[in-house]
Amino acid sequence: MSKTSPGNFFEDFRLGQIIQHATPRTVTAGDVALYTALYGPRFAVQSSDEFALALGYPRAPVDDLLVFHIVFGKTVSDISLNAVANLGYADCRFLKPVYPGDTLTATSEVIGLKENSSRKTGVVYVRSRGRNQQRQDVLDYVRWVMVRKRDEAAPAPGDEVPELPNAVEAGALGGACPILNVGAYDDALAGSAARLHDYKPGERIDHVDGMTVEEAEHQLATRLYQNTARVHFNLVEAAAGRFGKRLIYGGHAISLARALSFNGLANAFHIAAINGGRHVAPLFAGGTVYAWSQVLARADLPGRTDVGAMRLRTVATKDKPCADFPDKSGKDYDPAVILDLDYWALVPR
Amino acid sequence: MSKTSPGNFFEDFRLGQIIQHATPRTVTAGDVALYTALYGPRFAVQSSDEFALALGYPRAPVDDLLVFHIVFGKTVSDISLNAVANLGYADCRFLKPVYPGDTLTATSEVIGLKENSSRKTGVVYVRSRGRNQQRQDVLDYVRWVMVRKRDEAAPAPGDEVPELPNAVEAGALGGACPILNVGAYDDALAGSAARLHDYKPGERIDHVDGMTVEEAEHQLATRLYQNTARVHFNLVEAAAGRFGKRLIYGGHAISLARALSFNGLANAFHIAAINGGRHVAPLFAGGTVYAWSQVLARADLPGRTDVGAMRLRTVATKDKPCADFPDKSGKDYDPAVILDLDYWALVPR
Amino acid sequence: MSKTSPGNFFEDFRLGQIIQHATPRTVTAGDVALYTALYGPRFAVQSSDEFALALGYPRAPVDDLLVFHIVFGKTVSDISLNAVANLGYADCRFLKPVYPGDTLTATSEVIGLKENSSRKTGVVYVRSRGRNQQRQDVLDYVRWVMVRKRDEAAPAPGDEVPELPNAVEAGALGGACPILNVGAYDDALAGSAARLHDYKPGERIDHVDGMTVEEAEHQLATRLYQNTARVHFNLVEAAAGRFGKRLIYGGHAISLARALSFNGLANAFHIAAINGGRHVAPLFAGGTVYAWSQVLARADLPGRTDVGAMRLRTVATKDKPCADFPDKSGKDYDPAVILDLDYWALVPR
Repeated sequence: MSKTSPGNFFEDFRLGQIIQHATPRTVTAGDVALYTALYGPRFAVQSSDEFALALGYPRAPVDDLLVFHIVFGKTVSDISLNAVANLGYADCRFLKPVYPGDTLTATSEVIGLKENSSRKTGVVYVRSRGRNQQRQDVLDYVRWVMVRKRDEAAPAPGDEVPELPNAVEAGALGGACPILNVGAYDDALAGSAARLHDYKPGERIDHVDGMTVEEAEHQLATRLYQNTARVHFNLVEAAAGRFGKRLIYGGHAISLARALSFNGLANAFHIAAINGGRHVAPLFAGGTVYAWSQVLARADLPGRTDVGAMRLRTVATKDKPCADFPDKSGKDYDPAVILDLDYWALVPR
Repeated sequence: MSKTSPGNFFEDFRLGQIIQHATPRTVTAGDVALYTALYGPRFAVQSSDEFALALGYPRAPVDDLLVFHIVFGKTVSDISLNAVANLGYADCRFLKPVYPGDTLTATSEVIGLKENSSRKTGVVYVRSRGRNQQRQDVLDYVRWVMVRKRDEAAPAPGDEVPELPNAVEAGALGGACPILNVGAYDDALAGSAARLHDYKPGERIDHVDGMTVEEAEHQLATRLYQNTARVHFNLVEAAAGRFGKRLIYGGHAISLARALSFNGLANAFHIAAINGGRHVAPLFAGGTVYAWSQVLARADLPGRTDVGAMRLRTVATKDKPCADFPDKSGKDYDPAVILDLDYWALVPR
Repeated sequence: MSKTSPGNFFEDFRLGQIIQHATPRTVTAGDVALYTALYGPRFAVQSSDEFALALGYPRAPVDDLLVFHIVFGKTVSDISLNAVANLGYADCRFLKPVYPGDTLTATSEVIGLKENSSRKTGVVYVRSRGRNQQRQDVLDYVRWVMVRKRDEAAPAPGDEVPELPNAVEAGALGGACPILNVGAYDDALAGSAARLHDYKPGERIDHVDGMTVEEAEHQLATRLYQNTARVHFNLVEAAAGRFGKRLIYGGHAISLARALSFNGLANAFHIAAINGGRHVAPLFAGGTVYAWSQVLARADLPGRTDVGAMRLRTVATKDKPCADFPDKSGKDYDPAVILDLDYWALVPR
């Protein structure tokens, strides 16, 4: 009986297979403090029990991205330990708020498999779900990764590419946000007077500030998330690898961009869904992350007058301020761009 | 409607103006653990619920300086985002103990404005207050900063320099320390047998140990405090700036010096007030902080026989042990000195 | 009255002397989160309140090694501040589970003293005990350190070397593990189907992964443990010392090896005792720690059918993967080896 797991290779997956991931994790105020120390987010709802309580939450909910990272971390040792590349996310929905004291587990269902023409690798599509101790889904998302084959001669385990939505529909948003007493929403404490209808589709916002990442910081982060992808914290392996150095977990860049976006989006307090995201270029320690956002759309939430949704595209760069909104032209990105994220945030009306 | 805040410039301030700062913050056991990891303080009252309980606290209070840093952090984006220099503190009083679970907010009142003769900058004096969820003031202090003007031609918004006390009076101390059952104060657990009357005015104490600061550490600290001063964590901007590198938040040096001072001042368990402080020289990552203290005075607290106050001057240096008490002669400091802090600590009798 | 403590020198110790160490410490969820961020352990019992509750714990217990480090940290300023070398551990038993909210104190009893022939140093043997707020012992271990003499001419304070067991007996294990409802132990959540009898004495397991240590990380760790050994965080002193750089706390390497050992020993959820350990070579920042383990023995716990004990030897290396099990031959170790640890872990049957 082999005691250690080498992770799954492409030919090990089966369509419809459901994988229960280790390790269950109780999220605590300690995790929240570390998350604050790692990224410096200032959204009032997640920062203050009193602010959250006044709005109708039982207490401050855990940052959406901390929930994402913890659930994602659990999937790594089964799904992407032998990944060549993390290709994309889609249909990511936050379904229930998570509070300190909740315990999260994760499962993944294989929903697509497509061998590459080289026969050396294949793309695995999984729908991963995070669940709390009451067996309620708190998070649900699809990601696809290119995974190595153990044996190039092995037959492809399937040939199906799932259809994925370009964006989550507005009707599917809001599950992780209780009906809020918006009259108690204090703009001064929240840091901005701009409400939903103050943002116009097409509007671009430079988030001004930048944040430099140190090796110790992103290593602390990936370990906090119990993410076992060795490229993030094993210098010996990383030095011999593609980049010659440790690669920062892509989610770290997302959290930095989100924290920076407070300056301009202070009232976009909750990420309700991630429509898609691309890690355009790798990030390494010593890099300074900047970000800008564009308002893609606004939407009502069926039956709700407290909050509305704003579809945002947040672009993050490395070592380049975003006053001139570094972007892509055609298929090519400005060489400074590292992240292009499309998501729905909720904003008080 | 501009969505991002460029911070206030000198001409934006008005005498008497009161600014409500974002973001409310619930302090947790997670923040306390990070504070311990960042500085290594060993004062028994803040470290042990049992020790605190035996003395008459409901549980271990949060370290005074952690409270200070969190309140201070909130003021940065409104007061000092465009500051050239943080010039001083005065009349800083800790008014109520803070416990994990308390939520802190902060306001600042502009109490002085003085344009510099260059007309490029001016000095802004603010009285900042930290408040808990019961709307009780927990901290109150004055600081003054030199702030850039947006437009040199703009008229000065006022011309008033407030009178500030050289030191907080003993009668104003002790609000953040309940009446203690000093009979339960265990010197062995606290780490020292030296009580208030064992210290003599004039006495100097070398705190012996030194502590090296890494970039990741002070970045974690400023983000934990939600302090948005970019010079602390934006290498791109810092590299182009005055020092060519990231500057460590001055409060980080204060907390290091305070933690080091345990070796010699183990029973000076509570900072009741800060009379004044000067960041004599900047501190950068890689620097090793040492400290020594001098007893300036002792004072009774009106009506209290449990604890008394000791006025201390703690001097911190960079890369230089303090066995020979590096100091100033006249107006010039030993070049190793980075901090000169004057404060009142409470000590059991 | 001297206010600062220079630590004890060899001639300051007395046989039978009992030392009460400062500082009492309430362990919190914040400490647990930091421990997770520092090492990335994934053992389900310590990670999830729900998992622990189902088994019969009141909630997730604190990681055994975090308890060890906190107790150990308290002893440093009295026992090993003037140590030349930390020579060994023996008879280390975990006696009661520790939960967030518990407050730990520590005492040490001097059980052996042996001057070295140089008369410049001597070996001090202490039995250290960690105790919770109910005055129950939670941890008990012997360590011996080589300590400098203040005055070479001082007479040796004693001449006695205690007899120490090579290994803790199986009958003394299990105090820190309640009787478990093993039927509720979920192998999928725990990360492995290998139970006690799937491991055979002699079996060797490569833990595959490696983890690189940064200066900020081990400094955060030693300060979290309130460990005052300056060689870990004072670059000025360390640069002038034996290694020319900061030495990483030996316990940091133990925790890294333990966290890595999850891959292969996921169900060895509790360290019940440490039989002995040797820090074969120093570890410095930038080093990448790998580990492998050998099953030395299995043992029943008297009267218990829920769990059994597995005696393990875990060897950690620096910058060298362990697929070929780097070891010692005779008295000489492979030059990559930094740690050789012998302990008992409990595993569900």
